[in-house]
Amino acid sequence: MEELKPMPPSSCPLTPLGFLERAATVYGDCPSIVYNNTTYTWSETHRRCLKVASSLSSIGIKPGHVVSVVAPNVPAMYELQFAVPMSGAILNNINTRLDARTISTLLRHGESKLVFVDYLSLDVILEALSLFPPETPCPTLVLITDDEEEAPPPPPLSVSVDFCTYESMVDKGDPEFKWVQPQSEWDPMVLNYTSGTTSAPKGVVLSHRATFTMTIGSLIDWSLPKQAVYLWALPIFHANGWSYPWGMAAVGGTSICLRRVEAPTIYSLIKMHGVTHMCGAPVVLNMLTNSPMAERLQNPVQILTAGAPPPSTVLFRAESLGFVVSHGYGLTETAGPVTSCVWKRKWNTFPATVRARLKSRQGVPIVGFTEMDIVDPNTGKSLERDGVSLGEVVLRGGSIMLGYFKDPSGTSKCMKDGWFYTGDVGVIHSDGYLEVKDRSKDVIISGGENISSVEIESVLYTHPAVNEAAVVARPDEFLGASHHVRS
Amino acid sequence: MEELKPMPPSSCPLTPLGFLERAATVYGDCPSIVYNNTTYTWSETHRRCLKVASSLSSIGIKPGHVVSVVAPNVPAMYELQFAVPMSGAILNNINTRLDARTISTLLRHGESKLVFVDYLSLDVILEALSLFPPETPCPTLVLITDDEEEAPPPPPLSVSVDFCTYESMVDKGDPEFKWVQPQSEWDPMVLNYTSGTTSAPKGVVLSHRATFTMTIGSLIDWSLPKQAVYLWALPIFHANGWSYPWGMAAVGGTSICLRRVEAPTIYSLIKMHGVTHMCGAPVVLNMLTNSPMAERLQNPVQILTAGAPPPSTVLFRAESLGFVVSHGYGLTETAGPVTSCVWKRKWNTFPATVRARLKSRQGVPIVGFTEMDIVDPNTGKSLERDGVSLGEVVLRGGSIMLGYFKDPSGTSKCMKDGWFYTGDVGVIHSDGYLEVKDRSKDVIISGGENISSVEIESVLYTHPAVNEAAVVARPDEFLGASHHVRS
Repeated sequence: MEELKPMPPSSCPLTPLGFLERAATVYGDCPSIVYNNTTYTWSETHRRCLKVASSLSSIGIKPGHVVSVVAPNVPAMYELQFAVPMSGAILNNINTRLDARTISTLLRHGESKLVFVDYLSLDVILEALSLFPPETPCPTLVLITDDEEEAPPPPPLSVSVDFCTYESMVDKGDPEFKWVQPQSEWDPMVLNYTSGTTSAPKGVVLSHRATFTMTIGSLIDWSLPKQAVYLWALPIFHANGWSYPWGMAAVGGTSICLRRVEAPTIYSLIKMHGVTHMCGAPVVLNMLTNSPMAERLQNPVQILTAGAPPPSTVLFRAESLGFVVSHGYGLTETAGPVTSCVWKRKWNTFPATVRARLKSRQGVPIVGFTEMDIVDPNTGKSLERDGVSLGEVVLRGGSIMLGYFKDPSGTSKCMKDGWFYTGDVGVIHSDGYLEVKDRSKDVIISGGENISSVEIESVLYTHPAVNEAAVVARPDEFLGASHHVRS
Repeated sequence: MEELKPMPPSSCPLTPLGFLERAATVYGDCPSIVYNNTTYTWSETHRRCLKVASSLSSIGIKPGHVVSVVAPNVPAMYELQFAVPMSGAILNNINTRLDARTISTLLRHGESKLVFVDYLSLDVILEALSLFPPETPCPTLVLITDDEEEAPPPPPLSVSVDFCTYESMVDKGDPEFKWVQPQSEWDPMVLNYTSGTTSAPKGVVLSHRATFTMTIGSLIDWSLPKQAVYLWALPIFHANGWSYPWGMAAVGGTSICLRRVEAPTIYSLIKMHGVTHMCGAPVVLNMLTNSPMAERLQNPVQILTAGAPPPSTVLFRAESLGFVVSHGYGLTETAGPVTSCVWKRKWNTFPATVRARLKSRQGVPIVGFTEMDIVDPNTGKSLERDGVSLGEVVLRGGSIMLGYFKDPSGTSKCMKDGWFYTGDVGVIHSDGYLEVKDRSKDVIISGGENISSVEIESVLYTHPAVNEAAVVARPDEFLGASHHVRS
């Protein structure tokens, strides 16, 4: 059968971008985005994204150019997850919490041609641009204003930049624009910086195939129903909101946008819009359970958490309020959570402390992601799955990045022997479930013993008076403890 | 970013076969298959599949060899959807209803090295082998017996073939076998014949990538929950049961196997096992609604139908019994249903006849399948989406076949201009939903007018006294009606 080769009808590139047009067809008059008093339908979101993409094209953004976005989870931020790559450009979301110096470094490293900036981040962006060396051209700025908020007048521009507003790009755009389909599913679609605080930014480049794989895998793993109501508590600038901007289009869900992640806002939005699903770091769970607003939910809300294992006390409180907590694990380099602690029915009969311990594990690869293992970081040898043998977590699967931008040595350091080396340390239990113990750089070495900072933190969390915990090493003359500070 | 190329950690081949190992890890002690008094767990199914794959290897089956299966939906049939390709061989399911002459043709065309045959099909297979020319070597036979049924003694062998039983292959196999992973996701995995009645069999070859895309797309489209209970009313030999053998492993579902698709059996299995999902041609719906056993279901059962639009009367009766009917469309060449009549909430308010008309449409591409269109078959020009312009349905997406085996001219005839030409004729309505009117060869030409045989059939179905309808042309001196008979 060797004569049968891929042909154009079967080898069209995998990409999540096509989900938008499909959503406009199927869910055209259903709500796509709700933000304060604004509601868009899927038909409107589709048109708005095409218009922004066409405006990007018409002002000279070309396939392969990097376009940055600095914004919280407002509708424009959602739309740009489609609009930027639909123009052929590479989407670069930037964390709104970074300082001007770091943002300046990232914009220059990425050679960003244009920055969409929320009005509340305008100051920091202008400061970032003022740090550009004189000969370096500044990117065009596009200001995202907010009809719903009391927007202060934009400050006087201290640097010379081209400037327009997001809504003017929408207004001028062509809704009949033919969006730029990738030539290959391996074409870069997204550039996400994972570490802006160091002098060497790590720019994770994800292909269309990677974002597609992440999107469909997460939909299946979480059994996302059609027309789910999804609350945006997870910043979209964190690994593209774990792919759910694209996933919501796939299932015709409604995105509830919000500018500030605060417990009262979240509780009132849950009630007002009948939220069914949300994602968030454990700190969001923590915030929700500690809020004076916390009360039993009228309907269960599925919440997916990743980034750190949820402490058992937080888990108890969240579940007693009606949150159904799922726990996953991933990195910016994997496009989002690629393992998931798939819950087994029989575990429901176990005591609460056992349930919490089981749920704090990172689990198994999600459907469509290929494989994980723990290995000796020096030899690459696979270790026993006995819950004790501690090794580096390695992963392989379709959502792994192409590599780090402009950093071939960084790329080849973590892409070895067919695996992506995560830099995380963990065990695999005899039931096949991964438990991450720590970032390798956070392991505290004390008297020659490796101590997991995460493990000590989770013990501290069991004390009712402890709200948040962070364990760091301090030098000791006798024990000589040391570690790298968490970034 | 051109320097960033696919690397081994991100470019591992897409295949649905890995879902089995994952199911064994996550759902190891949960039921995978139930058949009469036999229940297997996912851990057992995983081991049995590895053992059969290892036995295939040890008797000389090599990657690229074709291995055929002629069996109804018994556990062995399910297992072989994994076990055969896990040995590296290409899986060739054969319709149990075909006659000996046709099966003989298919086995020789596919150059089948081994045939798994259900004891009730042994006679026809032996007859098929007796039709082999003397110089053509016969494939090895592996007999699938049935502990649960009164198996007659196998007939005396009239041809000289190697012979063993399925369970002996399981017994002798090695559960630690390292299954043969595809070198490339474009490697052929499945060979499905669509037309055995003509002298030129059409052998559809599907890659690992195609079966993967079909599996994940159908899971998302149908919002399959974890641990669904799936009743096997659709023969697995029909396009690999529309990919659900692999899909059930992805969600840890339970497959309820059955030998004969009869209404009393189905109703009793639904009640006994709490069936949540099933697939079937409209004739199955017809059978279920006409059965004297038909009574309101205790819990709703999702039923996905494709192959022909469900007649509205059948739809009404099915839905009034508690079946929730979804309607899709696909071909063996697309690995299963790749469009789906995604239901809109607002349609629930429409009168029953309108609802039935809407649901009889074939819908929109499922998530992950790229695109559909209707075109002028001669010029390839895209036609208006006005519900009136009748054209050939064309498709593109990841689940499209590699091509027809040993038939480059047949392949190139249907793979043109980046599209797969289905041979089906239809319209796309202004809301973007496809409605297939007929197989192009079933269009009746009468007095120069094109008449859809399906359309006339659907009118006949509205009469309460009509149970089944099939419209064919007859020559007419005046009108000159003609068409090709449906295969």
